[in-house]
Amino acid sequence: MIYLDYAASTPLRKRALHVLEKSLKEDFANPSSAHKLGTCLYERIEMYRKEILKYLEGHVNDRMVFTSSATESNNMVFFGLNLTSGDKIMFSRADHASITAPADLLKNRGIQQVEIKLKADGSIDEEKFWTSLDSDVKLIVFSYVNNQCGTITDFCKLSTEIKKKWSTVHIHIDAAQGFGKLPFSLKEARIDSLSISSHKIGGPKGIAGLYLKSNINLTPLMYGGGQENHFRPSTQAAPLIFGFYEAIRESFETIQTSLDHVQEINKSIRDNLNQKLSEIRFPYDKVSSPYILTFILPHISSDIILRHLETQNIIVSSTSACSSRVKGKNPVFDALHIPPPLHKFVLRVSFSHETLKEDVEFFCSAITQIYNDLKQLMKRRD
Amino acid sequence: MIYLDYAASTPLRKRALHVLEKSLKEDFANPSSAHKLGTCLYERIEMYRKEILKYLEGHVNDRMVFTSSATESNNMVFFGLNLTSGDKIMFSRADHASITAPADLLKNRGIQQVEIKLKADGSIDEEKFWTSLDSDVKLIVFSYVNNQCGTITDFCKLSTEIKKKWSTVHIHIDAAQGFGKLPFSLKEARIDSLSISSHKIGGPKGIAGLYLKSNINLTPLMYGGGQENHFRPSTQAAPLIFGFYEAIRESFETIQTSLDHVQEINKSIRDNLNQKLSEIRFPYDKVSSPYILTFILPHISSDIILRHLETQNIIVSSTSACSSRVKGKNPVFDALHIPPPLHKFVLRVSFSHETLKEDVEFFCSAITQIYNDLKQLMKRRD
Repeated sequence: MIYLDYAASTPLRKRALHVLEKSLKEDFANPSSAHKLGTCLYERIEMYRKEILKYLEGHVNDRMVFTSSATESNNMVFFGLNLTSGDKIMFSRADHASITAPADLLKNRGIQQVEIKLKADGSIDEEKFWTSLDSDVKLIVFSYVNNQCGTITDFCKLSTEIKKKWSTVHIHIDAAQGFGKLPFSLKEARIDSLSISSHKIGGPKGIAGLYLKSNINLTPLMYGGGQENHFRPSTQAAPLIFGFYEAIRESFETIQTSLDHVQEINKSIRDNLNQKLSEIRFPYDKVSSPYILTFILPHISSDIILRHLETQNIIVSSTSACSSRVKGKNPVFDALHIPPPLHKFVLRVSFSHETLKEDVEFFCSAITQIYNDLKQLMKRRD
Repeated sequence: MIYLDYAASTPLRKRALHVLEKSLKEDFANPSSAHKLGTCLYERIEMYRKEILKYLEGHVNDRMVFTSSATESNNMVFFGLNLTSGDKIMFSRADHASITAPADLLKNRGIQQVEIKLKADGSIDEEKFWTSLDSDVKLIVFSYVNNQCGTITDFCKLSTEIKKKWSTVHIHIDAAQGFGKLPFSLKEARIDSLSISSHKIGGPKGIAGLYLKSNINLTPLMYGGGQENHFRPSTQAAPLIFGFYEAIRESFETIQTSLDHVQEINKSIRDNLNQKLSEIRFPYDKVSSPYILTFILPHISSDIILRHLETQNIIVSSTSACSSRVKGKNPVFDALHIPPPLHKFVLRVSFSHETLKEDVEFFCSAITQIYNDLKQLMKRRD
């Protein structure tokens, strides 16, 4: 099987799997228990929390809250800031559903939306951004790497510029698709919170994190046993946290070699397909993470191409998994300036450090063959 | 090591561990993805959801929502019902923190609290209950099995009686400590929601469930990709769900033999300690689940006894793990009619199907020895 949907979810890294399996057997106690089995787990969790902050180059007083998903992390920010009627939030319609859906819910409570407009290449239209920013804006959300098209937002630069003039606005980064893949340092940023995900970097599903700057307080989504410094009650899933940490550790240790590898993979696909399929378009490749490659292949619906690829055991997607069961038009495509008649021709491939060059070559040949065959078939029918 | 803190958390059942390990390796795709890897996982999740409903003997149209913890499940009910100022909620101060803490938060929003009073044996004072129930009560919470003392609440009987007169009140059951251990049938109940936990029955941590009667709608805590029928967005942690299901399956298949075994274990401890320690009291043993045994052993602080037991590798607790790091007085003990001077003498042991008779005999000898030695020491000091 050739899996090219790493942006949706990733297989567990071997070391993370090993740590997780060991912990599932051994670390069965409740980390909140006062006895030694509990306190040992508690201390390990606290240690990893600090280690993750180090990878982010956060301040020693900053916090890392373990949550169940990046969706939960994002929701904690939207609902934890106690925004009130008249406040404005800025985000892009190309962001993940866990950004746009909480924003839409808050709209019902009188919180105004200011859309961050994108240019045709998927990057932020900074001119429009600055003119729409005013003192009523209380929350600005940037996706570090857009999950659909891979566009990178330089949140370090942007946040520093924003805070110079608007020091009190809360800047939240959804880094689910960039964390552990593209290096960044919080030392160079002026952000207030940042979501990270485990299952996007070879860690287990069911665990994620929310970075919070030291001075930030959030009203929690849930109340209970006071775990996670009262930000997130629930018995801490120690084995998942340990597996997540191991995936983070390996991702950061190999971040540059993985990036180099994926860059090569990405380039080889673009070169290969550009050569073979004259009509293909890569609208976002100039400003994107090499981990995600979105393209438009007109005439044949992506659904049909996906099914044909599947019969050859090649797994590709057209859009974010979280949006894939949504019927009707895709607002992310609109925000990314894809003309509505082309929505059904969008395809997304995404990679990891373990993606093989021969596999992507096979994918290129397969999709070319499928595309040409189907076009021939269409012509004969006409 | 002799582990007698199964009410806090349990080791993974072998079959659940096996299923989980297999799934962690194989089921890496995103269950929301439209491709075959995703849809296969999606369908398996839907199948298990229905199977769990069957174990509960729920109606075919009822729902089982997978959440990250029973704390989350409980919070979903408290915050999902859209209670407004003047509404009343009924619960006991002996309930888990994930009941009392959301109730206290809602109090700040004008939702009134009506305390369900308990008798000295830990059971509900039904006379007081019925007189305090009125038409302003919109939510009643019962713990199926109290996590501190094990008292069982016959929610089937109670809910049926309540709904005869008050048909619209929402009845929620926190079944984290009873589910999979003590049989019950939703056919005989008239409840609206019920929380279940995985890590209390030999399943993995980080996964739990919320049963919802077919006609019940809840405003979700989070918004995003629409998973779990919009009740709970986030990439579904398929391996955890599969491990949880396996733990449920085995728990239900062996529910009676496990119960018989634990009943024997429980009785043997009580007999043994009653014989050896004349001052020991078991205030709740008449109406309690045999899985939990709480006792008061005066004169020597439970903290000291726990530490001494730990040096012999015997793991016991004094209270719920989620409350164990809370300093100051324990409101659960007050609700259970333990006089304040005795709070520091409370001990809780809890069991599973795998608790060995020789281990509990060893525990009884050890605690007797420790207790007598420490008392001697005290006398000599006096």
